[in-house]
Amino acid sequence: MKRIAALIALGGLSACAAAPQQAVTAPSSRPAGPGPTYQYLYGSGEGGAISVQAYAALLNHVAAVGRPKNSVVLAEGSTLAAPSFVPCGDKPLAAVFDVDETVLLNLGFEEKDARRGGGPFDPKAWDRWERTGAAAVAPVPGAVYALRQLRAKGVTVIFNTNRSAETADQTVAAVKNAGLGDFVHGQDLFLQGDDSAGSKKDGRRSTIASRYCVIAMGGDQLGDFSDMFNQIASPRERREAAGHGEVARLWGNGWFLLPNPVYGPGMRGGFDDVFPTDKRWDDPAQGAN
Amino acid sequence: MKRIAALIALGGLSACAAAPQQAVTAPSSRPAGPGPTYQYLYGSGEGGAISVQAYAALLNHVAAVGRPKNSVVLAEGSTLAAPSFVPCGDKPLAAVFDVDETVLLNLGFEEKDARRGGGPFDPKAWDRWERTGAAAVAPVPGAVYALRQLRAKGVTVIFNTNRSAETADQTVAAVKNAGLGDFVHGQDLFLQGDDSAGSKKDGRRSTIASRYCVIAMGGDQLGDFSDMFNQIASPRERREAAGHGEVARLWGNGWFLLPNPVYGPGMRGGFDDVFPTDKRWDDPAQGAN
Repeated sequence: MKRIAALIALGGLSACAAAPQQAVTAPSSRPAGPGPTYQYLYGSGEGGAISVQAYAALLNHVAAVGRPKNSVVLAEGSTLAAPSFVPCGDKPLAAVFDVDETVLLNLGFEEKDARRGGGPFDPKAWDRWERTGAAAVAPVPGAVYALRQLRAKGVTVIFNTNRSAETADQTVAAVKNAGLGDFVHGQDLFLQGDDSAGSKKDGRRSTIASRYCVIAMGGDQLGDFSDMFNQIASPRERREAAGHGEVARLWGNGWFLLPNPVYGPGMRGGFDDVFPTDKRWDDPAQGAN
Repeated sequence: MKRIAALIALGGLSACAAAPQQAVTAPSSRPAGPGPTYQYLYGSGEGGAISVQAYAALLNHVAAVGRPKNSVVLAEGSTLAAPSFVPCGDKPLAAVFDVDETVLLNLGFEEKDARRGGGPFDPKAWDRWERTGAAAVAPVPGAVYALRQLRAKGVTVIFNTNRSAETADQTVAAVKNAGLGDFVHGQDLFLQGDDSAGSKKDGRRSTIASRYCVIAMGGDQLGDFSDMFNQIASPRERREAAGHGEVARLWGNGWFLLPNPVYGPGMRGGFDDVFPTDKRWDDPAQGAN
């Protein structure tokens, strides 16, 4: 997902969403090193391994599922509590992925971002990045192998990203530089601006599912699977909606999430949103809080 | 993994490991809200879903593998480049999990930690937490269902944690409170102090693999799979070791990683460790850096 999408999706909900570091302490000077979210995602063995694991699980799923009756794309009229799915018919098989921090690590942009200590999302800087950053990227660990395996099995790989249709050529160059293959806008690359829905992806997903039997989707944010997640204002209710009931069964079984604690609508909420009030600890050395 | 284990494993490598927030900016006052790592892990739909996904992938693996020839525990003499595995023989099946931030969310402790803005690990506070925090916990999303399914299939669930043998009774109470089941120290609960290896887990893993055919392991840190990862000083080399070659094939296929950007040896490294120097972006609005 692209940062600006998170901003748009959240609307007026919280300025913290795109400025998670700011919510903690406003750095008065440039940080001495990258913060923990950057360290985890771009520098750690754990962040790399959990990405490899997500792609391995996706390949295992694709091998197990063969040709299913339904796509893993939600059908019109679905709710998160009662999901239904677009039928496959005899459409060719496809797997649909978000781009940023799903198949592509935006190393150049994020290094600059980490040096200024995070802070509010700068849409103009991101636009410059889309236009000029194609060489400073890398694949997400596991993505190159997975995409190659999918294609070898006859599964079409499709990207559905909130990068702009205006910079389609540079995005094509960026994913090619990362070893992810050749993509053609409108054919296997869907961008923001392709329809009138802005950063919302359900319309583009619907278009893709009308042409393909989508056997797997990959993303780093819940909006890469359904726009409905981003209509939930409360962080805790959003977590409940993703982690319980029928849709929760899709994680690891058709829907595959890549780690991203750096940006996006997951990074919001105050203490009472993040830590349930019935699970507080009275540290005996500090007395009741 | 427990924080103190990360400290011990890293030795003198970096004070940043247990003080990721501190590495960014030293907060001069209490933060207004939890930082992004806490928001992601404890409060977000993404953090919950990626945990559910890891457990779903584990259950799919267990269903597919049946009774394998070898455990997923590395045999003595293994290297990360040339891993070999303990044979299963006719030993009963087991799955081995770390506890903290693998099956159990330490909500009470982490809420206090988030309120002081992270900062250096306080082993005395953690000791008080182990002794008095058993009520302020929750299961990791997906863990209760997965452990129940494993037991229903006749797979013994074993915990191997760096919580102290001295507080065994309280740890048994904490995991029971979280709905994870009844555990007995020395039987299906292995703790730091059970042998003379301190926070190193290979010895305890070896003991478990001598009694069981271990078909899956779960953890939030690389040391939950092999101590060898924690002997690698360079963050980038550690990431390479986990994400490439023979051991990389285990992620999602026997080794299952849970997300944790909050603490542990993954959260270290300066700009040049985290962001490869050959992937830098010259922002045209800012000139060369």
